[in-house]
Amino acid sequence: MTLKFAVIGAGRIGKVHAENLVTRIPGAEVIGIADVVATAAQDVAAKLHIPKVSADYRELLADPAVQAVAICSATNTHSQIIREAAAAGKHIFCEKPIDFDLNRIDEALESVRKAGVKLQIGFNRRFDPNYARVRQAIVSQEIGELHMLHIISRDPGPPPVSYIKVSGGIFLDMTIHDFDMARFLTGSDAVEVYTVAGVKVDPAIGEAGDVDTAFIVMKFANGVTVSIDNSRKAVYGYDQRVEAFGSGGAIMTDNLYPNAATISTAQNVRRDLPLNFFMERYTYSYESELRDFVESVVNDKPLTVTGADGRAPVVMGLAAKKSYLEGRPVKLSEIG
Amino acid sequence: MTLKFAVIGAGRIGKVHAENLVTRIPGAEVIGIADVVATAAQDVAAKLHIPKVSADYRELLADPAVQAVAICSATNTHSQIIREAAAAGKHIFCEKPIDFDLNRIDEALESVRKAGVKLQIGFNRRFDPNYARVRQAIVSQEIGELHMLHIISRDPGPPPVSYIKVSGGIFLDMTIHDFDMARFLTGSDAVEVYTVAGVKVDPAIGEAGDVDTAFIVMKFANGVTVSIDNSRKAVYGYDQRVEAFGSGGAIMTDNLYPNAATISTAQNVRRDLPLNFFMERYTYSYESELRDFVESVVNDKPLTVTGADGRAPVVMGLAAKKSYLEGRPVKLSEIG
Amino acid sequence: MTLKFAVIGAGRIGKVHAENLVTRIPGAEVIGIADVVATAAQDVAAKLHIPKVSADYRELLADPAVQAVAICSATNTHSQIIREAAAAGKHIFCEKPIDFDLNRIDEALESVRKAGVKLQIGFNRRFDPNYARVRQAIVSQEIGELHMLHIISRDPGPPPVSYIKVSGGIFLDMTIHDFDMARFLTGSDAVEVYTVAGVKVDPAIGEAGDVDTAFIVMKFANGVTVSIDNSRKAVYGYDQRVEAFGSGGAIMTDNLYPNAATISTAQNVRRDLPLNFFMERYTYSYESELRDFVESVVNDKPLTVTGADGRAPVVMGLAAKKSYLEGRPVKLSEIG
Amino acid sequence: MTLKFAVIGAGRIGKVHAENLVTRIPGAEVIGIADVVATAAQDVAAKLHIPKVSADYRELLADPAVQAVAICSATNTHSQIIREAAAAGKHIFCEKPIDFDLNRIDEALESVRKAGVKLQIGFNRRFDPNYARVRQAIVSQEIGELHMLHIISRDPGPPPVSYIKVSGGIFLDMTIHDFDMARFLTGSDAVEVYTVAGVKVDPAIGEAGDVDTAFIVMKFANGVTVSIDNSRKAVYGYDQRVEAFGSGGAIMTDNLYPNAATISTAQNVRRDLPLNFFMERYTYSYESELRDFVESVVNDKPLTVTGADGRAPVVMGLAAKKSYLEGRPVKLSEIG
Repeated sequence: MTLKFAVIGAGRIGKVHAENLVTRIPGAEVIGIADVVATAAQDVAAKLHIPKVSADYRELLADPAVQAVAICSATNTHSQIIREAAAAGKHIFCEKPIDFDLNRIDEALESVRKAGVKLQIGFNRRFDPNYARVRQAIVSQEIGELHMLHIISRDPGPPPVSYIKVSGGIFLDMTIHDFDMARFLTGSDAVEVYTVAGVKVDPAIGEAGDVDTAFIVMKFANGVTVSIDNSRKAVYGYDQRVEAFGSGGAIMTDNLYPNAATISTAQNVRRDLPLNFFMERYTYSYESELRDFVESVVNDKPLTVTGADGRAPVVMGLAAKKSYLEGRPVKLSEIG
Repeated sequence: MTLKFAVIGAGRIGKVHAENLVTRIPGAEVIGIADVVATAAQDVAAKLHIPKVSADYRELLADPAVQAVAICSATNTHSQIIREAAAAGKHIFCEKPIDFDLNRIDEALESVRKAGVKLQIGFNRRFDPNYARVRQAIVSQEIGELHMLHIISRDPGPPPVSYIKVSGGIFLDMTIHDFDMARFLTGSDAVEVYTVAGVKVDPAIGEAGDVDTAFIVMKFANGVTVSIDNSRKAVYGYDQRVEAFGSGGAIMTDNLYPNAATISTAQNVRRDLPLNFFMERYTYSYESELRDFVESVVNDKPLTVTGADGRAPVVMGLAAKKSYLEGRPVKLSEIG
Repeated sequence: MTLKFAVIGAGRIGKVHAENLVTRIPGAEVIGIADVVATAAQDVAAKLHIPKVSADYRELLADPAVQAVAICSATNTHSQIIREAAAAGKHIFCEKPIDFDLNRIDEALESVRKAGVKLQIGFNRRFDPNYARVRQAIVSQEIGELHMLHIISRDPGPPPVSYIKVSGGIFLDMTIHDFDMARFLTGSDAVEVYTVAGVKVDPAIGEAGDVDTAFIVMKFANGVTVSIDNSRKAVYGYDQRVEAFGSGGAIMTDNLYPNAATISTAQNVRRDLPLNFFMERYTYSYESELRDFVESVVNDKPLTVTGADGRAPVVMGLAAKKSYLEGRPVKLSEIG
Repeated sequence: MTLKFAVIGAGRIGKVHAENLVTRIPGAEVIGIADVVATAAQDVAAKLHIPKVSADYRELLADPAVQAVAICSATNTHSQIIREAAAAGKHIFCEKPIDFDLNRIDEALESVRKAGVKLQIGFNRRFDPNYARVRQAIVSQEIGELHMLHIISRDPGPPPVSYIKVSGGIFLDMTIHDFDMARFLTGSDAVEVYTVAGVKVDPAIGEAGDVDTAFIVMKFANGVTVSIDNSRKAVYGYDQRVEAFGSGGAIMTDNLYPNAATISTAQNVRRDLPLNFFMERYTYSYESELRDFVESVVNDKPLTVTGADGRAPVVMGLAAKKSYLEGRPVKLSEIG
């Protein structure tokens, strides 16, 4: 059996998912693609031999041949499209975050529940071999009982300020991945969040009402302390690492590099910069998350990343922001 | 324009090349596949939607729609198929080695020259990002003038003795890749070879007339000394590294690993074993060499790995064997 | 000129300092040693040929030949001995912390000021080549403007609970080194401290009124965010690292190892555990801090670690403890 | 009991040994020092409080209070002084090499045998923790049965040509340490040597009749193949590594560094250059070899590095040179 997809949104991430579904995921097929910019959808369709193209995703939702959708449109459209897709009986793979508004998230999740369709959120990093190895070490008690988790997550450079303005802010746009990682790795939930943050990279980000540098420390329900170190700009490239410490040891991951060469000269002993872009760094995980979703749908197995997993990091992001604004630890229960 | 391929041989490496051509190489198409074991060809064809299947490669060579062939059959058939494919006017990508016999190699290369078709040999490691980075460091003089090159090439385990018997021996079967690497990295040719070798891994390999452990040191025409360290069995996995030393510094490559995690416990500080299998280790290079071949044919550009590049390592292998048998340095000019 | 020392306290650290002064520090001489356990002082004196031994440090302070003292006695005697030594006109090297009580610290510092003698506090880690390299990278702007500093400081195992009870608690006994490191590396002072802590290693530590696992985040006056990750027990050994991140890059230090060997087997790729004990890990810095003190006294140069540097981390420790107890960020100005 | 030493030779290595004997080796005392340059001996004596100074070592040999000598004079005086010291009944620690001439070596060893004194040769690297760890891995079969050993030994820069001229040539001056390392690590002896060498670093070295770059491959009696990679000039510093490969795995050592810091910038990920000078790199081993010698003498235990261990690498060096000159593998039995 082949799961027939419509891809909604033909931007950067839409292209990645479409190409993976077409060429690398056994059991998946893409029969339609939509984008409000019709030419964007047409270009992708032409390259990947996708038969149906539209500027209106509703056209694809109305097609009974479509069994699943991959929602890759702008964030502010996610919850609406989830509701419509669920109502149309389509299984749903949706990019993170579901929404910035908890009510809209709850409505979307409720529509999914009622429709009995499957919804997976695109927290791709769970499928990265490095983080998966850390999770394995924790689950298998290779490092004993987990005590502390430290997540380093720095972008190679900030997005345009125009994007920052509609991004929901660093905590919902960037840290949200780290909040999910914290939940994934600890297997638990945050109960309190404390944030120190500021503008270090670009004053224009501050003028847009956001911060670009943040340090977050959280108490988790299972007693683990989790810290997150964020910056919008690491000049040496995409810095994505974690360190987990437990009663039986520790595990830490390094960045990934374009090659494994070390060069020694009269100046220093060096290697080339790490992979610079999330597309390169997480190539495998983008493919793997969709393969996992397809398998879950086709074999009716539990999802790896559920709608609830999509909601929780938004709550954490709102708490982190409130903590920053009020200069005090904020309990998750204060948010909702 | 799309280059239409027939794949000859549907074994392990034939499958890799067929899948890459079908799914990952823009501008390539596979329109036929042949294998003396018809079911093997049928299986691959079914999976990859290849229209034409045959137990006889000549059927595919006779098809005027076929523009290029990928020869992935047993080594002792390579030179014959090259001659026939050249006569049929097909461009040729052929797995290494061309043959164990220099006369047959020369006949094959002559047929290619006469037919005016392109022939690329499957020395995929040239396309591996690590070796490519070393080559770049040498060409750009990042390490000054090259003085010494040390190649470590150890398999995770020996092939079956049945294979060893028809393999041409370690120097033509395994070291041949390292001989090519030496030529690629130095940009020069060996003039003298000295070999120390023996049976350390499995006495059955010795009984089959071969060795399983070898150390080779070579003088190259440009004054560089090259050494190769081979073993048929590294228990920790596929060990593939080089170290180049020059007047301005050194460059060394490490193995590749399934993840970048380091685990510290009460016992030690460790990481998981390196990638164990050449298919995993060289995934990218198998794709890249074919992309390069397709580009060379389509745009009529010079080939990266020529027929002469296929011949030279065979001469080196024969010299290395002679040196081992006679216990003395052997000049390449003694071989032919 | 040779600076004549009396060493007060012949326990573990007293022995280290006595041996360094006798054998490794040019320009220093030890002419007396005191310990309330007379045999302890006698043993050290015999081994190192120290002429004068006493159970009463006052006897040494009364000796006009003594020019400087190294105070290595129990923490609760430090401030008293500083006052007496200052009154006797001796230069003072004192182990950290000066005291747990700010009033007693202030009295001690005042007595030093009045006497015009020099007082250096034993924050040896400032002299470790790794931390010194990080400081250099920050001062020279090799990593641009500093944004964040993360300090990992984990002991290989907790001290006896009997010691814990009189230790002043983890923040004044263990973290105090990290507080000093934060001040040293940032070149600035903490303004607010937030602590998350708990008992993870041994319930007996909790019963003694202390914690054994702590995470501290601090805002510094120069806008840098500093975090400290503490555990009383890292099963893999003494874990002492920092990571500094700035606008121009990052610098991180690794632990030190007994050898630089990597072993690959069928199980994993591993190395031996890091140096396990602070005496081994910081050997060089213990020697270096005393050499520095002797030079400062002999050449009348400014001290590298002043009395004020001894006071500040105590304030930070008290703030960290208050934050932990009250579950909120605590301003340093609340402490004094 | 204290072993009373006379140090013969107050040059670079003489100073190192004198200082270690005076300050770091329990059970040793230096009561005299001699150098043909009297002021050199006087300077060292003054600094280290050595009572007796002479321009003539024979004066010290005549002193019945002297129990042992450390011979640190020019190589061409070693065998003569060994004979005289043995005749005088002194135990002998002698710098490598004993001599370049096998007859003179044999006479010296015979004199030692007759006198019944102990003679240890200064192959300090055996005491370096890295090489000792490799030896341990081999002896304990942590890497199974040893198959291959690769030694990298490159100096940061060549000595003055004036020194080269009297050095005995690269094989007896520099490689001799690596020949000893090969014997130490394999626990076996070379039976055949093959050398490829040339002048790459400085033509003046060639004009002085020596080479500056060499690659040596050797068959050992126990079936292990050993290779040595030598250069007089590695621009990145002192490059001292080994890699041992066996049936159960491999062990490799890295260079030593002044710090464990890694710096990431917009250019690269780098660390500072390795320790550049043999005095820094092998500090510990110089101390350790003398401690070992003192213990062997005081407790009448077998020596770790015997006179025979001093002779064997000279034979290997002569064979390596002969192989280079004749362009063929040379059996050790051809030398003597």
